Amino acid sequence: MKNELQIKFGQRVRELRKKRGWSQEEFADKCGLDRTYVSGIERGVRNPTLVVIGILATGFDIQVYDLFKP
Amino acid sequence: MKNELQIKFGQRVRELRKKRGWSQEEFADKCGLDRTYVSGIERGVRNPTLVVIGILATGFDIQVYDLFKP
Repeated sequence: MKNELQIKFGQRVRELRKKRGWSQEEFADKCGLDRTYVSGIERGVRNPTLVVIGILATGFDIQVYDLFKP
Repeated sequence: MKNELQIKFGQRVRELRKKRGWSQEEFADKCGLDRTYVSGIERGVRNPTLVVIGILATGFDIQVYDLFKP
């Protein structure tokens, strides 16, 4: 099931990843997550937990706060 | 299991709820969540999903972004 917030969040993750010039696989490896899971997050079909959101922020070396910046 | 981010997030939720003068039950009702679940979030023993985080932000009438503001 897709959710508006999941879609927005996924777009933001994709945008940040592409800005850094990383493939999904590179980013997933940095985070210790599976590439298909990161792909699902970016497509807005996954509903990551707070802890996973923290892992993604750490992978980007930013605060969780910055992940949600408009 | 507790996690540093869960603890910080829970403290923030509690702080925002108390600022509004709401009981856990009042806030849980606004969110359509169980009071014990909200209590667990505030105590940092719950790992809410992105969708639940969105529901909490809506309950406070703020952006998800503001929920994570330092």
